[in-house]
Amino acid sequence: MRLSRFFLPILKENPKEAEIVSHRLMLRAGMIRQEAAGIYAWLPLGLRVLKKIEQIVREEQNRAGALELLMPTLQLADLWRESGRYDAYGPEMLRIADRHKRELLYGPTNEEMITEIFRAYIKSYRNLPLNLYHIQWKFRDEQRPRFGVMRGREFLMKDAYSFDLDEAGARRAYNRMFVAYLRTFARMGLKAIPMRAETGPIGGDLSHEFIVLAETGESGVYCDRDVLDLPVPDETVDYEGDLTAIIKQWTSVYAATEDVHDAARFEQEVPAEKRVHTRGIEVGQIFYFGTKYSEPMKAMVAGPDGAEVAIHGGSYGVGVSRLLGAIIEACHDDAGIKWPESVAPFKAAILNLKQGSEDTDGACEQLYRELTAKGVEVLYDDTDQRAGAKFASADLIGIPWQILVGPKGLAEGKLELKRRSDGTRENLSAAEVLAQLT
Amino acid sequence: MRLSRFFLPILKENPKEAEIVSHRLMLRAGMIRQEAAGIYAWLPLGLRVLKKIEQIVREEQNRAGALELLMPTLQLADLWRESGRYDAYGPEMLRIADRHKRELLYGPTNEEMITEIFRAYIKSYRNLPLNLYHIQWKFRDEQRPRFGVMRGREFLMKDAYSFDLDEAGARRAYNRMFVAYLRTFARMGLKAIPMRAETGPIGGDLSHEFIVLAETGESGVYCDRDVLDLPVPDETVDYEGDLTAIIKQWTSVYAATEDVHDAARFEQEVPAEKRVHTRGIEVGQIFYFGTKYSEPMKAMVAGPDGAEVAIHGGSYGVGVSRLLGAIIEACHDDAGIKWPESVAPFKAAILNLKQGSEDTDGACEQLYRELTAKGVEVLYDDTDQRAGAKFASADLIGIPWQILVGPKGLAEGKLELKRRSDGTRENLSAAEVLAQLT
Repeated sequence: MRLSRFFLPILKENPKEAEIVSHRLMLRAGMIRQEAAGIYAWLPLGLRVLKKIEQIVREEQNRAGALELLMPTLQLADLWRESGRYDAYGPEMLRIADRHKRELLYGPTNEEMITEIFRAYIKSYRNLPLNLYHIQWKFRDEQRPRFGVMRGREFLMKDAYSFDLDEAGARRAYNRMFVAYLRTFARMGLKAIPMRAETGPIGGDLSHEFIVLAETGESGVYCDRDVLDLPVPDETVDYEGDLTAIIKQWTSVYAATEDVHDAARFEQEVPAEKRVHTRGIEVGQIFYFGTKYSEPMKAMVAGPDGAEVAIHGGSYGVGVSRLLGAIIEACHDDAGIKWPESVAPFKAAILNLKQGSEDTDGACEQLYRELTAKGVEVLYDDTDQRAGAKFASADLIGIPWQILVGPKGLAEGKLELKRRSDGTRENLSAAEVLAQLT
Repeated sequence: MRLSRFFLPILKENPKEAEIVSHRLMLRAGMIRQEAAGIYAWLPLGLRVLKKIEQIVREEQNRAGALELLMPTLQLADLWRESGRYDAYGPEMLRIADRHKRELLYGPTNEEMITEIFRAYIKSYRNLPLNLYHIQWKFRDEQRPRFGVMRGREFLMKDAYSFDLDEAGARRAYNRMFVAYLRTFARMGLKAIPMRAETGPIGGDLSHEFIVLAETGESGVYCDRDVLDLPVPDETVDYEGDLTAIIKQWTSVYAATEDVHDAARFEQEVPAEKRVHTRGIEVGQIFYFGTKYSEPMKAMVAGPDGAEVAIHGGSYGVGVSRLLGAIIEACHDDAGIKWPESVAPFKAAILNLKQGSEDTDGACEQLYRELTAKGVEVLYDDTDQRAGAKFASADLIGIPWQILVGPKGLAEGKLELKRRSDGTRENLSAAEVLAQLT
């Protein structure tokens, strides 16, 4: 992409309304624009990152055997009356009447709708286990939306729903999602720790929140320092095999949100020098809730003995849009964002330090063509801004590799390759740059 | 994908509520489920096709120089008061109040919001031309939703918005989208004819609807038969060059919707034997509306002489979810859907005609592994249904290539490869099947 043809409205000033660094940087880097309280438009740079994150979530759900579908944003109020949650949900639910005065709502979550879909088609235990997920916009009418996409009202969530014949099966489904979440967040360069958590309005008695430690997080958390260094399963993990050893390793070390924190156990189990009490950002949460929805909504299957039983369910959420904020909170410096390569909007930026000069223009064009031809996503800064402004923009938007093309280096046949994550620089030939990036 | 692990709820009976064949087939093939009037969940098979269509639309928008962003589904009513459309839009607009009694609406289109984004950042003609698009769910509260996804209430639309300094620039932008639309629909196997059309609530005085001829369509259309055989530009078309010859070729042959049909001109210009009067399905519409939104909403840029001028705009819609219905209307037979390969949910299906037999199981597994390894999307029917039911399902869901693996053929080292589009069959070795499909 040529910057001269891209839409990248970088702000020079720090926006006053942004209280935390990720919100500030997303606004400054031209990634989002607020359209109403807690409702954002995703500008091209922001959308590119959102889609990268969404795709990682999708790949790991698929790998764990979940099947993607897509439920609509609007739901019938009557469906929520079946579970009893229509009245229970409170003012966070956006309630709507259509032209025929039919009551709708903008889905804040989809337990009811997926249960309705399940019961319409699945009648036998032979079709289990089943895990269905979608990645769809949700709405929760927060009293006080803030922190940009971290606590928005319209937000993108991945929510999966598992259906099993009994509790043992449901726990295996829970474990598969547990492991998929470890992998999902690790692929984005995040250390997200599963912590015992309250179940809240979803219900049930087993839940973990996946939490990225950060001082700006909204949740207080307690954990044993050892949990920060546990290994994440690699892509060879066998989701059809027994995952209990992995789950045990992660859940036997103390880690809990403040809502379920047990101070006595914490002090007994964790040596003083290993006690961590800090704040964190919740990027995912998983629930086992048994028959909470299947019983009132009559989601029954015939078991092996022919008797009808209510299925055991769980649900599994990832805050896809919130993850942009969480990643920036974890990956930035004073100059701007430092995207991990897996979610970066572009892998590399070419900075033409003397736009209009035949030599630098020619070298940049050739490099741009060659990188693009090899499938590298590259942003070519071909604007007539001065070099300093180009450096600042590239640092701000956080492209992992910057290729600086100036007349002095070119005279010696060299470009400068800068790595954004640690600021290291190397003088390389164009061929070496190509080799490094492909 | 193994069918035994997929979620493909095929209906044996024809659903009574479906009036047209595409709606009937989408329900029977387990592609969609109605959740409320005109509001559908996309089951896994349907979602796979929706994503294929979405991706073709995206690729052709990008090729034509449009930039993708993503606006939220909900919008502030005040924004629509600026253009005067809040009161003008009528009961199709879903109006919503949030917990603080702030007036919102579920966007039926985005001219106002994109104009707000544009004016916030773009101040100079030097940043033009600009074309921004998104692919997002919209809501129009139809009085009588029907025909499945063809006239739904919550539907997926691609809408692009162009910004130019003057009318000449805006017409070039219009022409780029005109050509992009020709290519977009052709890639999906559709013959979509651009026809002069009314502008309706979007406004302006220049508009074309892209129409797929079909008896079940909702629009009456008139055209010269010659327009059906005009060539569609291939992928080498130069969007930065002069497109007027292509536009002239397509617009000089008579083609109009009934709303703007000129009977006298039709009879004068079109020889009687070439006159076509039929019905059609609108799959896209493009508009040039000049300063209709930029003037009231003050979307101004400084021109080359420094004077501020209101930009000239156009908007360009594709009915992404509706396209599934349109493609099925155009591509089906009595047995079911015949997907064009470019949008098929899977390219090939392996039908194991004797599940549980060592020979067929082994041959199917190997073929499944090899096709998958080569990146072919394949659905392996590994269920224990009898052969006849497998044939019927594969025909119904319309997979372009069916590979029939039975004991008799295997004894001779042969599989049967059936092409869904014309029913032709060939006996081939596994290696030949692989070569054909990769």
